[in-house]
Formats: sequence, structure tokens, C-alpha cells
Amino acid sequence: MCGKCRFCSAGRPVLCLEQGKALTTPPEGTPRVRDAAGKPLGIFSGCGVMAEYATMSVDNLVKINPKIPLDRAALVGCAVTTGVGAVFNTARVEPGSSVAVFGCGGVGLNVIQGAAIAGAERIIAVDTLEPKLEMAKQFGATDGILFKEDPVKALKKLTGGGPDYAFECVGSGALAEVAYRAIRRGGKAVVIGIARPAETASFKPMTMVFEEKTLQGSAFGSCVPRIDYPRMLQLYMAGKLKLDELISRRYAIAEAPQAFADLESGKNARGVIVF
Amino acid sequence: MCGKCRFCSAGRPVLCLEQGKALTTPPEGTPRVRDAAGKPLGIFSGCGVMAEYATMSVDNLVKINPKIPLDRAALVGCAVTTGVGAVFNTARVEPGSSVAVFGCGGVGLNVIQGAAIAGAERIIAVDTLEPKLEMAKQFGATDGILFKEDPVKALKKLTGGGPDYAFECVGSGALAEVAYRAIRRGGKAVVIGIARPAETASFKPMTMVFEEKTLQGSAFGSCVPRIDYPRMLQLYMAGKLKLDELISRRYAIAEAPQAFADLESGKNARGVIVF
Repeated sequence: MCGKCRFCSAGRPVLCLEQGKALTTPPEGTPRVRDAAGKPLGIFSGCGVMAEYATMSVDNLVKINPKIPLDRAALVGCAVTTGVGAVFNTARVEPGSSVAVFGCGGVGLNVIQGAAIAGAERIIAVDTLEPKLEMAKQFGATDGILFKEDPVKALKKLTGGGPDYAFECVGSGALAEVAYRAIRRGGKAVVIGIARPAETASFKPMTMVFEEKTLQGSAFGSCVPRIDYPRMLQLYMAGKLKLDELISRRYAIAEAPQAFADLESGKNARGVIVF
Repeated sequence: MCGKCRFCSAGRPVLCLEQGKALTTPPEGTPRVRDAAGKPLGIFSGCGVMAEYATMSVDNLVKINPKIPLDRAALVGCAVTTGVGAVFNTARVEPGSSVAVFGCGGVGLNVIQGAAIAGAERIIAVDTLEPKLEMAKQFGATDGILFKEDPVKALKKLTGGGPDYAFECVGSGALAEVAYRAIRRGGKAVVIGIARPAETASFKPMTMVFEEKTLQGSAFGSCVPRIDYPRMLQLYMAGKLKLDELISRRYAIAEAPQAFADLESGKNARGVIVF
């Protein structure tokens, strides 16, 4: 624990923003899982367990309403928190806002439903695939733009000058530039997608000044799990946060390799392994 | 009037952020000043007058406390508003914050005193010239760094991880990158300096996500003159905003060419032509 980011300081270092990665051991650093030869295995975020029982550090636990089905609760552990949190905590989208969402995968869909819950008036989904735009509408997108050519002109026309907020949910420097160009004067572009380490995004400082735009990064939806997980699950219980609709397919533990293959191909909004 | 930025929408288009420049005629577009041959002369911000009398559009006027000397009030028309406004309105610096200021000219000094008024605990001036750092201390800087080599390491050491806020007050893309690198995880870098149009600043989106930093442009201190001018002048009357100290020299109208030469050489904090 280095104490440099909110994960450490909250005593729950499942992610280390200093090292830019999820931890592979529990907080005290002891490997808990070993292979047949006794060699330590890294486990995702220091707690990723694919076992029926596990000892966990109390710092890695969040108490939730026991009425919530665990396959739904599991979603709040990553994509939901990242997308909805980027809207609620990072950007703080206000009611009546216009929002553009670049990339409508697991994270983008949650940005869209987060924006809908926050009362955004216009939510424009942008993706290269038509079926993703259709799914985006189920989560609250009011418009869809098929990304074939530069969508900035279309976005400015739809919103009368550019959306108030834009979210980059793919992990592309070039797309971060597009999101920044798209927003209105004084708007905010939020980068959520994790680009390759060497990628860069370039901006003109002069334009930045005159247009007074804001560019911000969001890691894990700027969430503190002990505060945000119960809050999001309460929204699910109230019928506002769509978790059932996010699960495209459930897998048995024996189907895990198939689940990972489907994850890689982007086939599911979310796939959940139930065991 | 295009109605696209806060200057138009407030009915006081002395600057046009859409065109990225100060206007050269009054709001209704009629040239008011002509040379000896009758050719229209552009006037700064549509009201820049170097005359003893002028007719002005009511939209270009702000009523101020008549007790305030006009040579001091004049300063609030640009550098003070830009610097102090960037702290109060754009960044919204909180008491107890740490702030780095890159460039300690007319705007930078006002960022420094704005940060001091806002209750910043640590204000670090960064400049290439030692005398500028000395002057910065008069305006509230607690520390000074002579910019010879990359100052990021020194800034991180001074603040234990990087300042909460950094302000770029020079107009350099490279310096905007330095300011962004300097701030702590979750910090905010504000670009105030107007760089050359072709200059770019480059950032790594991956780092942006993990570090959750914010990058924002500030034009004219995000101010609305009718609200902010009286507010700042009130701070002067209360002895909190240093305007007397900003004036390095006063010039008679006949000395105007000297005043402009001194402006260009950076000799004064501010020079004021009194006539």
C-alpha cells in the first residue's frame, strides 16, 4: 500500500492507480492462490475468486442488501460503476444536459443509463456497429450516430453547437480528440477508455483557452466502493438502474472458456459466470 | 452578435470567443474611430478608447463604486480579471489548496493573489527570471522555482505528490504539458496563456484515466464583467486585492509609445496611461 490514491487511502487497495493496474494479491501481499506446482497465481484486484469459498480481507468487502441477486450485484463490481460513476461522480451531469457517448459496449451502455438517470435530455450514442446503437436505445439513448465518418458535424447539428458532455468509452487517443472537438464551448469531455500506454491525444492550447473546454480522466467512475456500490444497487432495487437487461448470457463454471471468448469478441453486453 | 458565447449572450460582446478575438467595433458594428483620411480604425474590444470623450454602448459599460480611482479600476478590465477569475471561477480553488503558477507576468501575479485570497496554503511561483519570483512573493507566493530544468520533480517534492492546481500563464503548449504533469492525481491544470494558433499539447489518455486529472481552458477568467468587476473592486476596497502594487509605472498620453515599448519588453507588472 503506497497510500497515494483513493483506493489505498480508503483501505481497500483492489486497484492501484499509482501502478495503473489491478492488484494481484490481497492487501497484505500474501498470494492466496497457487497452481498445482505451488507457484503463486495472481488474482484480479487482489480478490478475483473463481472458487466456492475464499477468505477475504475485510477491506475488500462491501456489505449489500441481501435481497439483491448476486449475478446482478456482480455487475456493479466493474462496468456499471465505471460508466454510471463517470456520469454521477466525475462529470456530474446535470438534468437537461446533452451527452454524447463514444462506444456502446459494457461501459458505454452504463454511461448512457447513468445519463438517463441523471436527467440528461439528449443522449447520443456513437458506435461503428448498428446493433450496438439499437441496444444503446434500450438503455436510454435518444439518438444514435453510426460512426463512419467524423461525427462532430452531426453532433453539433443535433445539439445546436455540441453536446455539454462527451464520454470516450473505447480507449483511443484519436477518439478522445473527437470527443473533445464535439463538445460545446465550456463543455466537458471525459476519457474512460483505457488506451494503449504509448497512445497520445493532441489538443490546441489556444482553442482550449478560447473555448474553455474541460478534459478529464475517469478511473473506475471516481467511485469509492463502500459508498457507491450500495447507492447503485439501491437504484436497481428502485427500478431505475437496468442490470437484468445488461446480462446477455449466463454461463456455468465449466463454460468459462466460452465466456471469455465471448467477452473478447464483444458479443455480450455482459456475460456472467454463475456457480 | 452570434449569440454563441457568454459575451454575446450577456449582451456585452467586447470579446468574441467564437472568432477567438476582441472585437474592433462597438456591438452594432459601426466604426466609431477614423483616421485623418476617414478610414475606419479598429478599436480594442469594441470600446478601447484613447480619447477624452467617447459614446459607448450601454452594453459595454459596468457601473462601479465611484470612490475607486480609475487608474486602479482600469486594471480590472483585463489582467486582474483573467488571473483572479481563473482561480475563482474556472478552477474554483479551495482554501488549503496547493497551487503552482507558471509565468509571473501580469496575469500570473493575479493568479497568485487570487489563490492567496481564495485561501490557498501553498502558492509556488515558477518563472525563468529571478526578479519575477521576487515580485511573485509580494503578491502571495509562498515559494519560487527558477525554471531552468524541468520543475515537475521539485514541485512534486515541495507539495508531497504535486500541487492541487497548476496555471499556465505564458501561452506555451509545452508548458501546458508541464503543468499537467506537475499536478497531483485528481488535480486540475488550467491553461490561461494564449499560445500561437498552430501550437499543440500532447497527453497520454491512459495516464489521464488512471490519474483522473483535469485539464481546462480559461478565457478572461470565466468572468461575466457585470458580476465580476464590482466583486473584484470590492476586494480592492477591502484591502485584499492588490491593485496599487500592480502599477509599476504611470505614463502621460504623450508617453504612450514608451508605455507600449515597456509592455513589450515585460518591464512592468502593469503600466497605466493616465490622461
